[in-house]
Amino acid sequence: MSERGLLLVVSAPSGAGKTTLCRLLIERLSFRFSVSHTTRPPRPGEVHGRDYYFVSRPEFESLVQEGAFLEWAEVHGHLYGTSVAEVERALSGEEDLLLDIDVQGASQVRRKLGAQAVFVFILPPSLEELERRLRSRGTEDEETLARRLARAREEIRFAPWFDYVVVNDEVERAFEDLAAIIRAERCRPARALP
Amino acid sequence: MSERGLLLVVSAPSGAGKTTLCRLLIERLSFRFSVSHTTRPPRPGEVHGRDYYFVSRPEFESLVQEGAFLEWAEVHGHLYGTSVAEVERALSGEEDLLLDIDVQGASQVRRKLGAQAVFVFILPPSLEELERRLRSRGTEDEETLARRLARAREEIRFAPWFDYVVVNDEVERAFEDLAAIIRAERCRPARALP
Repeated sequence: MSERGLLLVVSAPSGAGKTTLCRLLIERLSFRFSVSHTTRPPRPGEVHGRDYYFVSRPEFESLVQEGAFLEWAEVHGHLYGTSVAEVERALSGEEDLLLDIDVQGASQVRRKLGAQAVFVFILPPSLEELERRLRSRGTEDEETLARRLARAREEIRFAPWFDYVVVNDEVERAFEDLAAIIRAERCRPARALP
Repeated sequence: MSERGLLLVVSAPSGAGKTTLCRLLIERLSFRFSVSHTTRPPRPGEVHGRDYYFVSRPEFESLVQEGAFLEWAEVHGHLYGTSVAEVERALSGEEDLLLDIDVQGASQVRRKLGAQAVFVFILPPSLEELERRLRSRGTEDEETLARRLARAREEIRFAPWFDYVVVNDEVERAFEDLAAIIRAERCRPARALP
């Protein structure tokens, strides 16, 4: 069997437990996060090329012009993007990459890579449970909470377009779904046949 | 999550170990073989509706005319077929069905059901190993063996069209691939979303 790498794109509304599941994929399976480009200044201890590729806004914008990004977005005034070059390494077989991005980013990747990447949407068991989880954090006022829930409702509408949906009712069970998806995807003819 | 059933179509060249793997799917997971129609006379102990639907050749042929079969074939002078009605039960959610058919039959099912069924091709580790396995049975003369190997070589050319390929180098490992494929397929939006 071939050793070609897998590009796994994981999206979820906030509160669905995506961060925990991605951490488990990295700890237990062979995945690593792709290293993104950003215009955010490095924090103490962050290393260029390991945590991020730190670039200036003009540099980032010219990369956008060149079509160097698979997907990019502006978050809290800083630009973040995943370069095609970073991902090509995975597709050419060296590593398994994990992209933790929102549905907008996932749509950009789908447009550029089509079926070459595997798209998984993490769902909360219900919107009621999502609200309960967001409330239990206790960090947000009612307005922020209402905005997050409205956004979650919108994002969940994209779930039918993903290759797979994983209901995160229980972390270990959801992780086993993800592990099965990855194992199954390695059995795709394009990856499994010599 | 939904309880909709899965239709798994498994094909392989003879000697790839398909029969053993299908038996494990039935013993360990929720699958059962679909009950086929046949014009072969019942053997002692075989029950109509459990082992086969035993029908006359004219009955079978009129079912063919009505388009009642998902796939059918003539083997050693007898007709065998899988009825659409039998399979609709699985697709409507009552059971997980397993179809153990050759690549011609799989092509017929693909044509009728498209992506509703899941198609898995079982591969031997190599043609050399396939030949070794067929020889070790010791039941066939050189001519039959050569014919089987030529047919296997032809069938293997269809592998890239299947949804998944499972290399049966070791039965338990191959079974784990199948189990992962089934678990992943239950995470498809059409099956997992309410």
